[in-house]
Amino acid sequence: MSKKSIRVGLIGFGIVGTGVVKTLIENSEIIEARLGLPLELVKICDLNITSDRGIKIDPKILTTKVEDIFSDASIDIVIELMGGLEPAKTFILKSFASGKHVVTANKALLAIHGAEIFAVAKKYNKFIGFEAAVGAGIPIVRALKEALVADRILGIYGILNGTANFILTELIKGTADFNTILKEAQRQGYAEANPALDINGSDTAHKIAILATLAFGLEVDFKKIPIEGIENLELEDFTLAEKLGYRIKLLAIAKKINNEIDLRVQPILIQATKILAKTDGVFNGITLIGNRVGEMFFYGKGAGALPTASAVISNLVDIGHDIILNQQNAVPIRGFQDNFFKPAKIVPLLQTESRYYLRVNAVNKPGILAHLTQVLSKNKINISEILQERRPENQAGSIIILTYRSKFGVIQKAVAEIVSKDLIINKPILLRVEDFGE
Amino acid sequence: MSKKSIRVGLIGFGIVGTGVVKTLIENSEIIEARLGLPLELVKICDLNITSDRGIKIDPKILTTKVEDIFSDASIDIVIELMGGLEPAKTFILKSFASGKHVVTANKALLAIHGAEIFAVAKKYNKFIGFEAAVGAGIPIVRALKEALVADRILGIYGILNGTANFILTELIKGTADFNTILKEAQRQGYAEANPALDINGSDTAHKIAILATLAFGLEVDFKKIPIEGIENLELEDFTLAEKLGYRIKLLAIAKKINNEIDLRVQPILIQATKILAKTDGVFNGITLIGNRVGEMFFYGKGAGALPTASAVISNLVDIGHDIILNQQNAVPIRGFQDNFFKPAKIVPLLQTESRYYLRVNAVNKPGILAHLTQVLSKNKINISEILQERRPENQAGSIIILTYRSKFGVIQKAVAEIVSKDLIINKPILLRVEDFGE
Repeated sequence: MSKKSIRVGLIGFGIVGTGVVKTLIENSEIIEARLGLPLELVKICDLNITSDRGIKIDPKILTTKVEDIFSDASIDIVIELMGGLEPAKTFILKSFASGKHVVTANKALLAIHGAEIFAVAKKYNKFIGFEAAVGAGIPIVRALKEALVADRILGIYGILNGTANFILTELIKGTADFNTILKEAQRQGYAEANPALDINGSDTAHKIAILATLAFGLEVDFKKIPIEGIENLELEDFTLAEKLGYRIKLLAIAKKINNEIDLRVQPILIQATKILAKTDGVFNGITLIGNRVGEMFFYGKGAGALPTASAVISNLVDIGHDIILNQQNAVPIRGFQDNFFKPAKIVPLLQTESRYYLRVNAVNKPGILAHLTQVLSKNKINISEILQERRPENQAGSIIILTYRSKFGVIQKAVAEIVSKDLIINKPILLRVEDFGE
Repeated sequence: MSKKSIRVGLIGFGIVGTGVVKTLIENSEIIEARLGLPLELVKICDLNITSDRGIKIDPKILTTKVEDIFSDASIDIVIELMGGLEPAKTFILKSFASGKHVVTANKALLAIHGAEIFAVAKKYNKFIGFEAAVGAGIPIVRALKEALVADRILGIYGILNGTANFILTELIKGTADFNTILKEAQRQGYAEANPALDINGSDTAHKIAILATLAFGLEVDFKKIPIEGIENLELEDFTLAEKLGYRIKLLAIAKKINNEIDLRVQPILIQATKILAKTDGVFNGITLIGNRVGEMFFYGKGAGALPTASAVISNLVDIGHDIILNQQNAVPIRGFQDNFFKPAKIVPLLQTESRYYLRVNAVNKPGILAHLTQVLSKNKINISEILQERRPENQAGSIIILTYRSKFGVIQKAVAEIVSKDLIINKPILLRVEDFGE
């Protein structure tokens, strides 16, 4: 019996779900030209099936009962686009148990329960596609799983959250404040349902956890990733960073260091000349360093209904190709063979090493620079640059020091000693500076 | 009988071939962790098997007779890295006929004889991987074949030749001349064996021909691609372009325009703020516009032994995965189903439309600007910007005009009329200006 279409069920008819349905309709010809058969949407499940999404849909395919999808033996692939941990996880596992492949954009779920989900997929010999979980249409999951397979990945440096990056890009223009900008991002449909995850770095961390697994063959315990958001950044530091030739970005880092992995999400200064630093607005940018390809960079819209739909459908086509030939997807779900995986040893925050940007607000009296430099010297932290701009004598102002590499625990101790001096007015600002690539 | 390794034969033990062999040795552990079996190099064929490539190799696997590869029934995949049209084509076709899959980096061959080669591969039910043919390790072939399958591709804008881009990047620094810079590129191993192909745009054209086929499902007649190299560029135009906010790059363009395709290689001004314009030195950069993903950008080392080896081996792993499961590669070799392909209608050069950069060297006498603007106006070409820098009266100097869009045939006619005036000293410089993306 030869198939006439690849039959798809969709769980979650929100913004991205609507983008997928629209794309399946509007780009059906080009998709079929590639796949060889139509992708046929046979069921859509959502608690709300009455609102108008601006698309003509046969009402018969709409349902509020998810069981209608599991029990339909004709469905080959289930798309999970409801987001969140539960009941999304249960629905994905039930899809496998019902003999269906799965495509999902659910980065939180994969970052936290990925190992379990992948194991169940394997048990039922089903595939799970998750290109849309990181960077939307940017094919970074595919790049790590299939393209860079001859490379030892040395590091990944990613701007992975469009909302946070949009806020940082707009903030530096100085025309609107944090909340106004966030509202604009929400209005444009880029922010997560819960924008706290965008701002506090969690969404970025979900994504780097997934990428680190694919790049290094490591099982990442999500709870152990040091995460810092952009909530506490001050405008002055953007301007000063710029003067020193750097940009502040909410950066996800995953770096192999001997047998450990330096995996973290923080606002970090990167050199303004790096191509990654040109990732502005809602765009995502990812720099990879491989021991064969050297520095490589991917850039595109990391969110939004249509770019995400593109990634979801690319996975439908992947799976569809193999269904047509009655064979299985040959690439391991996580790129590496299962027996290769080890638990990741994540470098604890105090042990992470980098350069630093230190700003102290101090009264311009004799002894202040001597104090700063003595404390750093005592802690064996080398200074790479100092910036102090002229101001009236005896008035407080900012002194910025860029350091060479040291452990976070060491600089933190040094900062505590610096603060002990009365002349330091506010709590010093301490940010990381990351050099990478060629 | 379960296989113990995927067995590979290599034809061409030059710079890239050596990079492949080195990578197979040095990164064997990581490659096997992904593939599940070792990639075993069982035969290397080259006319020169005596020179020292700095790698320890069992001399028994070296041969000067290519038949030793075809006749070895144990070889699963042949890597063709000799380059050039013949005998490379014959060797690839013989590999298929001997029941072997093929991996090649041979862009010239695929651009010119791709259709024939792909047809023979299909006839023997064999796969041909050619990720290394464009952008070396940048997974652009994979992106078009597998990732952007839900997108109508609207345009591709590529800096695809590292040598030409290295020359342009160095030229603008003004520290060395064209030939000195070219020699440096050759010394660093970036230039093609015949560097004329780098400089005159042919190598770039080979690559865009391949990408256009994958992006649009079109069979491209290579001879019909308008190609212009960087040989005739003058330093003054780099400086002036920069002043106007543009960079001159050797750009490959493939744009869908109704049922035709605007496909060409030319030195072109692009806005300096575009991320593509940041592609400097030997790096390659490719901007894609899809009707779902919007603007997307890929960047990396587009040449060199190790980045190219990475791409070659990624294809070995692709094929190896399916060999292990005793199944076939499910993705069509050119991304689209064969019956979708049509011959490309390439827009003839005179009909291509763009904005222009026009520099005339004229004596600064009354009437000169009136003459220029009248001629343009008569030909219905709108001016967007003019730059004329102060100079002593009655001395010759440059006037630069940026225009809005018009057909090349029209601006060419206008330029001929402009030259008719005695006051124009040299042949005017006419370059294209390309706006794209968001």
